[in-house]
Amino acid sequence: MKLSEIGEFGLIGQIRSSFPAPEGVEGIGDDCAVIPQQAGMEMLVSTDMLMEGAHFLLEDVPAYKLGWKSAAVNFSDIAAMGGDPVGSFLAFALPKCLPDGWVEEFMRGYGDISRHYGFPLLGGDTTSSPDRLSICVTVLGQAPRGRSLRRSKAQVGDLVCVTGTLGDSAGGLDVVLNSRERDSDAEHLLARHYMPSPRMAEGQALASTEGVHAMMDVSDGIASDLRHIMEESGVGARVDVASLPVSDALIRFCGRYGLDIFRLATGGGEDYELLFTMSPDAKPGIDYTIIGEITDGIELVWNGSEHDYSGFRHF
Amino acid sequence: MKLSEIGEFGLIGQIRSSFPAPEGVEGIGDDCAVIPQQAGMEMLVSTDMLMEGAHFLLEDVPAYKLGWKSAAVNFSDIAAMGGDPVGSFLAFALPKCLPDGWVEEFMRGYGDISRHYGFPLLGGDTTSSPDRLSICVTVLGQAPRGRSLRRSKAQVGDLVCVTGTLGDSAGGLDVVLNSRERDSDAEHLLARHYMPSPRMAEGQALASTEGVHAMMDVSDGIASDLRHIMEESGVGARVDVASLPVSDALIRFCGRYGLDIFRLATGGGEDYELLFTMSPDAKPGIDYTIIGEITDGIELVWNGSEHDYSGFRHF
Repeated sequence: MKLSEIGEFGLIGQIRSSFPAPEGVEGIGDDCAVIPQQAGMEMLVSTDMLMEGAHFLLEDVPAYKLGWKSAAVNFSDIAAMGGDPVGSFLAFALPKCLPDGWVEEFMRGYGDISRHYGFPLLGGDTTSSPDRLSICVTVLGQAPRGRSLRRSKAQVGDLVCVTGTLGDSAGGLDVVLNSRERDSDAEHLLARHYMPSPRMAEGQALASTEGVHAMMDVSDGIASDLRHIMEESGVGARVDVASLPVSDALIRFCGRYGLDIFRLATGGGEDYELLFTMSPDAKPGIDYTIIGEITDGIELVWNGSEHDYSGFRHF
Repeated sequence: MKLSEIGEFGLIGQIRSSFPAPEGVEGIGDDCAVIPQQAGMEMLVSTDMLMEGAHFLLEDVPAYKLGWKSAAVNFSDIAAMGGDPVGSFLAFALPKCLPDGWVEEFMRGYGDISRHYGFPLLGGDTTSSPDRLSICVTVLGQAPRGRSLRRSKAQVGDLVCVTGTLGDSAGGLDVVLNSRERDSDAEHLLARHYMPSPRMAEGQALASTEGVHAMMDVSDGIASDLRHIMEESGVGARVDVASLPVSDALIRFCGRYGLDIFRLATGGGEDYELLFTMSPDAKPGIDYTIIGEITDGIELVWNGSEHDYSGFRHF
C-alpha cells in the first residue's frame, strides 16, 4: 500500500472496515465517537505519546511490534486502575519515507492486541509528518464508581507488591542499543520490551480484592513509580532489594555482559507490571511478589543495598 | 523555565496546579483520569494530532496561539456534534531546542481557551522529542442520548448551511507562507487562522433545533467536508458558489494579491465553522448562511462555477 495513492480517506476507510465498533457504540466515521454512559460507572481515560527517535528507532522495531506496544502501554494504564476496556483512539503523523506496507503491519499489531484484550478502536487521526513518526494513543476504560485503584491510598504498614518480573524490558533495550547476540535469553528480553502484556485480568482482580489500597503500572521503573505512590499517599517505603523479582533470562544476560541487574530492575522502566500496596491480610488470587513495605517516613529506603536507584527521566 | 532543570514531573506539577479538575472528577495525577458516567448521556470523544513541519512552523506561530489552536480544533469536533464540554487531554513531545518559556506560553493559550469554553484539562502525557514538536489533543464531550448530530442523517431537499465565513483561515495561511504585508485585513485573517473560535454555542443550539439533520465542522474545506456528509448520508449536493459567505477582509485580500477567493472558501480548510443540513422549515436561532441543497444524486455540483473544487489533502 502506498499512502500517496490511497490517501488519507482511503487509509481511514481501510482501518474502519477492520475495526467495527461494538453494538451500541459509534466508532470511526464522524467528528466524534459516541459511547453510551452507564449509571454507577466511572470512565477511565489515559493518553500516551510515542515519538520516533525518543521512544523507538524505526530501523530497530518491526512495525507489527510497534503497533502492539503503542496499544499495550495504554491498556496498561487501564489495568493499573483495575478497569474494563471501553475503547481506544489512535492518532499518528506518518512520514512519507515509511516503507510500503508499514502501516498495514503496524495496524495488524495494533489490531491483534486490541482484539486480545477486547479494546475496540473507536477513532483517531491520520496525518502526515515531514520526517519523524509520532504516535498518540488515548484509551478509555470503565469501572464501577469508587472501585478503581488510585496511587493515593497507600497506608502505613501495607505490603508493597509487584506482578511478574522487573527489568526484562530494560534488558531488551540493552540488546537493541548494544547489538547483543540474539540468543534465547536476548529474545525473551526483546519480546518483553517490544510486546509487553498489560496485566488487565490481574488489575481487575486486585480492584475486587478487599485490602488492596493503591496501584499503578510500572512504566518508568519502580524507583520512580513507587515515589509517585509515596507522594500521592503521603507515606514512605522500604524496598527489600534482594526480593525484587527478576527472570532467569535477565540474571544470565546481566551476568554475561556485566550489567547491574538491580539498576535494570528498579530504574529501567517499561515493564508494565502492576505495583500495588495492600494490607498484610489481603488475599488477591493472583501471582505476585512482596518487595517491601509502606512506612511512615517520607524516604524510599533500599534495604540491602548501599546504592540509591532512580527511574527513567524523559527530559 | 528550563525543561532540563524542572524535569518531566516538575512540568506536570506546574500544569496540574494551573488546571484543577472540576468537582467529582479526578484529573491529572494518576494512571487515568476518572469521570463519573451519567445515565441517559452519551460520551463524545475525538482526537487530533498537530505535527511541526506539517501543520505549523515553530518560527511562524507564537506559542500562545499554538496552544489556543491545539485546543480549538478539538473543541470544534465536540461543537460539530452539538455536545457539552467534559474535558481535554494534552500529549506532547517536546524538543530540547524550545526557547525558555515556550511551554508556559503554550499552556497559557491552551488554558485561556479551555477556561473560555469550559473544558477542564484532565490529563495528558509530557515526553521528549529529538527535534520535531508533536502535539496530540483528545477531547471529551457529552450530549443527551440520541441528540448529538451526525454526518449521516442528511435528507434530500435539506438546505445546506454554514455558520460564519469561509476561507479566512486559508487567507491567513497565505499571509504566513508568502510573507504578505501585515495590514488590518491580513491581521484579521491571521487571527482566524491561528485562533479559531469553535462554534460551541451554535452547535448546541442546532442540536436542539427540530429539523436540523446532519452536521460536521469545516476542517478540510467544504469541498472535502460536504463530500463526507454526502457519502455517509448517501445523497448528493448542490452548492451555489455565489452564496458562499466570505469576509470583507478576505475579498480585499484576494483582490490585492490576485487570489481565487472561491478556491480558498471551498478548499482552504481550518475554518472550524459548522456545516449543517436542515429541512427548509427549520428555525435555528443562530446566524448562518444557506449555501445550497441536498439532492438525490451522488455528485457535488458547484452551481455558478465552471470549476471543480477540492479540499485539503493530508498525504
